[in-house]
Amino acid sequence: MVPAGSGRQTGGMRATTIHAPFDIRSDDVAEPSVLRPTDAVVRVTASCVCGSDLWRYRGESDFTPGARIGHEFVGVVEAVGEAVSTVTVGDFVITPFTWGDNTCRNCANGINASCENGGGYGMTDREGMLVDGGQGELVRVPLADGTLVSTPTMPSESQLPDLLALSDVMGTGWHCARGADVEAGDTVAVIGDGAVGLSAVLAARLMGAARIIVMSRHEARQQIATEWGASDIVEKRGEAGEATVLQLTDGLGVDAALECVGTDAAMQTAIAVTRPAGRVGYVGVPHGIEMPMGTLFSKNLRLGGGVASVRQYLPELRDRVLAGEIHPGRVFDLQLPLAEVAEGYAAMHERRSIKTMLLP
Amino acid sequence: MVPAGSGRQTGGMRATTIHAPFDIRSDDVAEPSVLRPTDAVVRVTASCVCGSDLWRYRGESDFTPGARIGHEFVGVVEAVGEAVSTVTVGDFVITPFTWGDNTCRNCANGINASCENGGGYGMTDREGMLVDGGQGELVRVPLADGTLVSTPTMPSESQLPDLLALSDVMGTGWHCARGADVEAGDTVAVIGDGAVGLSAVLAARLMGAARIIVMSRHEARQQIATEWGASDIVEKRGEAGEATVLQLTDGLGVDAALECVGTDAAMQTAIAVTRPAGRVGYVGVPHGIEMPMGTLFSKNLRLGGGVASVRQYLPELRDRVLAGEIHPGRVFDLQLPLAEVAEGYAAMHERRSIKTMLLP
Repeated sequence: MVPAGSGRQTGGMRATTIHAPFDIRSDDVAEPSVLRPTDAVVRVTASCVCGSDLWRYRGESDFTPGARIGHEFVGVVEAVGEAVSTVTVGDFVITPFTWGDNTCRNCANGINASCENGGGYGMTDREGMLVDGGQGELVRVPLADGTLVSTPTMPSESQLPDLLALSDVMGTGWHCARGADVEAGDTVAVIGDGAVGLSAVLAARLMGAARIIVMSRHEARQQIATEWGASDIVEKRGEAGEATVLQLTDGLGVDAALECVGTDAAMQTAIAVTRPAGRVGYVGVPHGIEMPMGTLFSKNLRLGGGVASVRQYLPELRDRVLAGEIHPGRVFDLQLPLAEVAEGYAAMHERRSIKTMLLP
Repeated sequence: MVPAGSGRQTGGMRATTIHAPFDIRSDDVAEPSVLRPTDAVVRVTASCVCGSDLWRYRGESDFTPGARIGHEFVGVVEAVGEAVSTVTVGDFVITPFTWGDNTCRNCANGINASCENGGGYGMTDREGMLVDGGQGELVRVPLADGTLVSTPTMPSESQLPDLLALSDVMGTGWHCARGADVEAGDTVAVIGDGAVGLSAVLAARLMGAARIIVMSRHEARQQIATEWGASDIVEKRGEAGEATVLQLTDGLGVDAALECVGTDAAMQTAIAVTRPAGRVGYVGVPHGIEMPMGTLFSKNLRLGGGVASVRQYLPELRDRVLAGEIHPGRVFDLQLPLAEVAEGYAAMHERRSIKTMLLP
C-alpha cells in the first residue's frame, strides 16, 4: 500500500481546481466531513486524470472557474455516517465516477450514471452541498452504500493501478463493448487509442471477439493494444483508414465498432467501417457529432452507449483484477504527486502520457 | 380470389408512373418477361400505396420524371426462369418490398434490404435493366428464389389484404419493434399512427408489451390501435404530448419508443419519452432528423432500425395470417382500381385514407 496523505495541515487538504483553460491548480481547501448519515469520507490512495477532464482543460466544455475536478479514485474509508452499512472505516474502496443509490429505477435498469438520486464528483449535489472532486486528498462520498465497492483485503501496491483503472476507463471501455453487444466471434474495430479505447480492446477480447482492429498511430498505444488482443493495427485515418478497415474485412465492414473519442470524425469512421446490421458502441462525450441518419437507416446500424454505468461492472471487474486475470492499470504510464497535477493534465493533453496517476 | 388482369392489350400493361410532385399516372407500358434464369414474372393480384411513396409524391425525395413506382404487391406467378426452384407457375406469392438473393453476407446477417446482389422495385438493376414497379399489372421479379414467399394454397379473398400488408407495413412495424428490442412486460410508446405505426402496435403486442401508448389524434386510427393492443392514446403532440407520456409513466419514460414517421419532430418525441437506458426503434425514412447526441449520451439510449428486412419476417407473419391470428390488412380503408391510383395517392396524402389497396 502507498501511505496516504502527507504534509497535510489539520482542517485543510490539497484538492485540484480548474480556473481557466490550461489553468489547473493544486489548492488548499477545507477538509470534508460526514454531512449526512449516508456519507462516507474516503482518504484517496490514488486518483487520475480523465480524457473527459481534458474537454474542460482545453476550454471545449464549460465550467465554473475555481471548480473542483477529478472523478476517479480509490482509497481507504476514513469515516462513515450512521446509515452506511456496506463499507466501514479502514476498507479499501473503489468508486465509480458517479455516485448514486444503486436502488432507484434507473439503477435497477442498469444505468447508475442516471441515478435518480445521484450526481457527480467536483460539483454540488441537489441541495447545493459541495461534493469533492476526486483529484484531492479526501472526498466526501454521498450515498456510500450505493456507490463504493470494497475489496475483501487491502490490495498490494502493484494492484493499485489496476483497481484505479476500474473507477472509469476500464468500465467505460467495457460499457462501449456492451453498447455494441460484442459477442464471441465478432470482428471489432476500435476507434480511439486513449485509455478508454485501449480498455475497449481488452473488453472486446474478454467478450470473445475473434478479431480486433485498432486504429492507432502511436507506438506505445499500439503496444498495449496488441498485448490486450488487437489483431490488426490501422495507422491511417479518415477515409484512408476507413478504406483499410473495409479491405481487411473483404469489403463488408466489422460486426461492431467501438467509438471511444467523441468527435464527429471518430463517429463518422465508426459508422463507415461497420457492416450493414452491425453495431456501433460509443462512450466518448459527444462533441459536434452530426449523425448521418440516412446512412444509419440504409445500413440498419444499431447504436448503443453513453455515460458508462461503471458501478454495474465493478464487482466483476474487481474480481478479475484480484484474480490477476486482467491488468487494466497498464494504461498508466506517468505517475506524479498530487501537487504536480497540472503537469499530469499537460502531459495527457500533449499526448506525452496515455493516462496519468496521481499519488498524495 | 380477385380475378387478375382485365382489359389488357397483348404486349402492353398498365403501370403506375410518377412525373412530377402530385402527378401520378397509370400508363400503358411494355409487359415484362423473364430476362434471366433467376427471374419470375408475377401477375399482380393486389398492390398498394406506401407512406414512403408519398415522400416522392410531395416532392420531398428525388425521382426521375416518368419513373415507375410502387413496391408492395402480392400475385400469382406467371412465368419463371429455368434456375428458379422455390416458386412455380400458378403459386400465390408475397414479395418483400425489396428483392434479393437471401444468401449473401448481409442476407445471412438478417438484413435482406442490404442484399449485396439485390435492389428495389421501379428502378433499374445493376446492369441497367428495368425492374417493374409494384403498382402495375405484371412485375418481373429478379432473384425470385431469394425474394418471393409463397402460400401453400391459394388464399381466400378475405386474406388478400392481410397478406398484402406483409409486403411492407406489417414487416416494417415488426422491424421497428425488433429495432427497439421490445420484450415481454415492456411499456412502449408508438409515434406515428400511419399504417406502419399501427402495425408497430400490433407487433409490440405480439412481442408481449404490457402497455402500449399510442400518439394519435385520428379517431379511425385510434380505433385500430386500440383493437391491436393500445392501452393509452395520447392526442397531444410535441412537448405537451411528451409531458403526457412521462406523466403516464410516473415521470420515468417508456422502455421502448417506436418512431414510425421519419421526421425530426417524431424522433425528438421518441427520444424525449424514452427512459434512461431505454430503446428507440425507427423505420420512418429519415427526413431532416438532427440527432441530439448529448441527450442520447446522457440517457444511454439505444437506437435500432432502418430499412426493414421484411423478407426475414415473411414466413412467420404469413403463417400467423393464414392461421387467422392477425389481420394486418385492417389498415386498408380504401380500395381502388389500379387505373385510379392517382386518387389513392391523393387520399393518403390528405390523410383521408390510412392505406389504399389497388386492384387490377
